[in-house]
Formats: sequence, structure tokens, C-alpha cells
Amino acid sequence: MITLDHGSGGKLSRELIEKILMPELSNPILSQLGDSAILDIASTKIAFTTDSHTVSPLFFPGGDIGKLSVTGTINDLAMVGATPLYLSLSLIMEEGFSEELLKEIVKSISSTAKENDVRIVTGDTKVVEKEKVDKIFINTAGIGIIPQSTDIGPHKIRHKDRIILSGSLGEHSITLMVLRNEMELPKGLKSDCASLYPLVRTLTSKIKDIHAMRDITRGGLGTVLNEFVADASFGIEIEESKIPIQPDVKAYCDILGFDPLYLANEGKLVLFAAPDVADEIVSIMRKHPLGKDAAVIGEVTESHPGIVAMKTSIGGKRIVDSLVGEQLPRIC
Amino acid sequence: MITLDHGSGGKLSRELIEKILMPELSNPILSQLGDSAILDIASTKIAFTTDSHTVSPLFFPGGDIGKLSVTGTINDLAMVGATPLYLSLSLIMEEGFSEELLKEIVKSISSTAKENDVRIVTGDTKVVEKEKVDKIFINTAGIGIIPQSTDIGPHKIRHKDRIILSGSLGEHSITLMVLRNEMELPKGLKSDCASLYPLVRTLTSKIKDIHAMRDITRGGLGTVLNEFVADASFGIEIEESKIPIQPDVKAYCDILGFDPLYLANEGKLVLFAAPDVADEIVSIMRKHPLGKDAAVIGEVTESHPGIVAMKTSIGGKRIVDSLVGEQLPRIC
Repeated sequence: MITLDHGSGGKLSRELIEKILMPELSNPILSQLGDSAILDIASTKIAFTTDSHTVSPLFFPGGDIGKLSVTGTINDLAMVGATPLYLSLSLIMEEGFSEELLKEIVKSISSTAKENDVRIVTGDTKVVEKEKVDKIFINTAGIGIIPQSTDIGPHKIRHKDRIILSGSLGEHSITLMVLRNEMELPKGLKSDCASLYPLVRTLTSKIKDIHAMRDITRGGLGTVLNEFVADASFGIEIEESKIPIQPDVKAYCDILGFDPLYLANEGKLVLFAAPDVADEIVSIMRKHPLGKDAAVIGEVTESHPGIVAMKTSIGGKRIVDSLVGEQLPRIC
Repeated sequence: MITLDHGSGGKLSRELIEKILMPELSNPILSQLGDSAILDIASTKIAFTTDSHTVSPLFFPGGDIGKLSVTGTINDLAMVGATPLYLSLSLIMEEGFSEELLKEIVKSISSTAKENDVRIVTGDTKVVEKEKVDKIFINTAGIGIIPQSTDIGPHKIRHKDRIILSGSLGEHSITLMVLRNEMELPKGLKSDCASLYPLVRTLTSKIKDIHAMRDITRGGLGTVLNEFVADASFGIEIEESKIPIQPDVKAYCDILGFDPLYLANEGKLVLFAAPDVADEIVSIMRKHPLGKDAAVIGEVTESHPGIVAMKTSIGGKRIVDSLVGEQLPRIC
């Protein structure tokens, strides 16, 4: 049986991919399992990616399913160093869905696309009977161009690389969780849903040797870091005290027993770069609204390959595993 | 309110696109509303398309949701003269969905992709709670390359162009309808679900001046032909007696009051070409298993621009409108 945990972005998602999808579909491009596939078409490097969005509720402080569908795919393209150019848009709606809500969602898709200079060039709409889909699901696929000289990916990661986080963790997850449970949303707390492309563009125009990037969505930082060390000859060590978390998010995590390392974000990235450029990267990020809380949170180590370890705030050291189980379904 | 009719591929689908989507999203590429968008990336013509599949039931004689998800997108690429190369694959599953069924679907995706020499290069999996999606929905987006010299599209259609149909209508719709109503499926009746790319490749290698093509899916032949004449300076005249229909399909249409002109197909195309190559096209098609019942069914006329007219079998003439309302939801 497929369970919600299979959609968590964590261990069971990985298992689903490795045990059911890859044995049938595997090829050298798909097997890289990056944020985007990198295609060589007529000697041009093209990035290609897809995401379906099933977020509930559809509208939330900081975003909505329309904005999320555009930024999610833009972010996946940006993480491989691509300039996002074109999106497809596929809507699956429930019979009886409100035209007014649809208009609002489409407006949000449109303005987010315009802000990011990407165009929706092809689409599809389906309508299914009542209760056969929850209101509306949206898929986008995206195409971008990667400059020939750009080479960003896990294969570039080296021993002692610094690990840089672009900002505080968990705002997206906690905002949705508070809304769903009809709890009071602390003033100022909202989803971090954003296109990371402007931040990445600023970075890549100034720093030539970014080794790898990934946006931290489902599964959270803990899972993303584990994806980097899986089957790798290196490990990762991070420091809990360096990881920025907003006080409201921390408070909700304490009350509800969530671990911020596994909370989903929709406007945060983790980046690997050589030690000599790490401070410059953090300084560039901090001047940008999307990176104002950026920090070096750890480094790549040879001492425990395949393992993510964390120095805790109270001085201990623990292993950070991939997310097991689902903390909060349908956050994207 | 959004109704099932908005997903029919007919009049209300068009209205949804024109009234809600285009005012916000319109751009010169999207506005062409072709089977695929045609992008100019680094001087290469790239075709890009997407489709979400919500077909019910998931398995049917002649195909399944996996095969359909691959052939549907391949067909959209083939219709603009592209060689299909890469697909994305996004699965949205219901909690509790059977792993065994998923494996069967993935196997079907894999074998269909291999047969057509396309690769799944990027993907996404989501799981939602029980009853928030009906079993499994699948989105694919596709990328293909169009040879620089190829120019296929509605803008190429000329007065007196012959209209060629690749085969008989309605097998896909009627097969699903019979299954859903637990009626007895006549021996030999099955969905025509197929990749049209092999047929198109054979054609385009021999005939240089195909003017336009479209696969006949939702909305059926009647709607597809109306899309060609919408806002055009020409009309279309077809002959009912020339349109191939299998006897079993005809029988079900008579009993149930369906019009075969509006039934969806998943392995049929309609093609426009100059009169002097029409017979050669039909003869090439008839030698191919996917086109064995191909026929010239009509021609482009100047006499009633914007209108599709049909000479009926009993000698009259009637206007063929776009599909109004939904004959059968969730056929793809």
C-alpha cells in the first residue's frame, strides 16, 4: 500500500523511487535525481523539471497554490544554475470549484511568472467529478537554459566545502500547520514561499565556483543533506546553534514536537562552496531580502562518509537521519 | 462554478481558456493553443507540451493510464512535427493505493517510453489523504526537437486542402463507456490508445508539405475541426459517408445516443495537405498499422469561413458545431 509517508520527501519517498520507479525507468539522466534534469539538446544545456502541487489550504499568508506552483518549478531550475524561461501549466479541478477562486489563482500564477520573467507557454485543464480531487491540483513543468560554463551539482562537492543556509527554517510548514488546526497565527509569521532565482542570479554573477545547491522543500534540511551524502565518499557536519530559526517557529516546534530540521520550506536553499568563498557568499546573500539570515552552518568532512552529524546546542553530537514518516502532509 | 463540461475539450473548455486563463497568461506562444508550444532556444526549435491524466478505469482493453500518459504527450509533440525525446513524470496518488497496481502502471510507462525511444528524465511523486484524489492521476510534460525546415501548423492551411483522417472514430470512448457501465465489451473492441509518432515519422520522411495535424482526443473530430476554423478565413466541408467507424462503435452510438463526431480517440489524427499529395498520404497511411483505415474525409473551402459543414449520408448538409456539454468525463 502507498502511504502518506511515501509522499513525505523523506525515507519512504526515496524507497518508492528506488524500489518501484527506478528499476523500470532508470537512465543516466533520471538517475541523478537532481532538482532538474540536465539535457544536452543541439549542444545547449537545457534544465527540465516538474512538480505537482496539492497544498492545503489553497491560500495562506505568504502565498497560494498558484504562486507555489510557479516558484517551486523556478526554484528547481535555479538550483542547477539555469535561467528559468518557460513553464507548462496543468490544472486538475473538482466539479463545482469556484470560478472566482480559480481567477485568483490564475492571477497569482500570472504575476509570479511575470515577476520572474518566465512565460507559461503550454497547458492543460481537466475537471473530475465531485470528491475525486480535493478542489484543485496544479502541475507545472519548467525549462531553463544553463550557461555552457556552468557546472553545479553534487559531483562538485569537495572535502571541507562550507555548507551555507540562505535563511531560517520552517516558516512554510508551521504557517500551514497553524492554519489547518485553526490556531492563532503569530503576527509576522508567514510562509517563506518565494522564487529563489533572483538570489541565485545575484550569487552566480559574482561567485564562479558554487559547487552545489538545493532548495529545502519536503523532508527539510535534514533530508536534503542526507541526499547529498547518500552513496558519497564524504559526510557532513553541521552546528545546531548556527541554524537560524524564528522564535515563533521554534515555539510551535517545542509545543507540537516538530523538529525544524525536517520542516518544509518554499524559499530557502542550502549551498556548498569552497572555504575561501564562503564568507563572500554569506555577505552577498545577507544583502539580499531572500538571504538576510544566511549563515555557514557546517562543512563537508571525510571522517564519517554517508552520515550527517550535528553538534547540538548543548554540546553533544547526534546523527541527523532522513525524515522517517510524514510530519505534515500536503505542504506543497 | 467549474463544471464537468469545462473539462470536455469542447465549447466550455474553450470558454474557460479564453475567459479565465488567457486574459492573465496570454503571450504569443501560448496564444497559438497548438498541441505543443514551439520554442526557439539557442536557434533550435523545441516543442514543449503537458497533459494530466485522470482516466477511469485505470486499466482498459488497449491501454492503461500509464501508457496513455506517455502516448498522449508523444502525440502532442508529433503533431507539430517534433521528434519526441524527453518526458517528465509526476504521480499524485491516494493514500492506500496499491503498490502492485503502481508497479504495473510504471511498467507500462517504461515499456511505452522505450518503444518510442523517449526517456523519462525528471519526476515528482505526491501522496494525498484517502478520498482527496481518485486512486492516481499522472502528469507528463514532453520535449521534442523540430527540424529547422519543418513548419507544420494551422497557418499553413490553404483553400482546397484535403482533410485526411487516419482511422475510425470512437473506440477509446466507447470502450471506457462500456467498461464503466459494466456492459459486455464486443469481441475485438478496444481503445485505440497508441503513439502516433511512428506513423507521423513515416509520413514526414516521405511527404514534405503536410500543412497541419492534430490528434483527435477530447471533444472529438467535430471539436478539433472547429478549432481549425475558429477565427479563420476558411471553412471546412466533410462527408459523413467517408468517415470510418467500426460497426460495434456505431451500434453503441445508436443505442446510447452518442455522436461519433464528438467521441474521444487516443490514437487518431486529422491532417491537412494540398490536393496533389492527398492520395499519396492516404496510401502511405494505409500501409501502416496505425492508418489502415485512413481516408480523405473532406476539404477546406472558402464558401463558409469559420464553419464546419457535413454532407450527411442521406444527402443533406448540416453544420458541425464544437462539442457542447460533456458526453463522457475522464476519458483521458
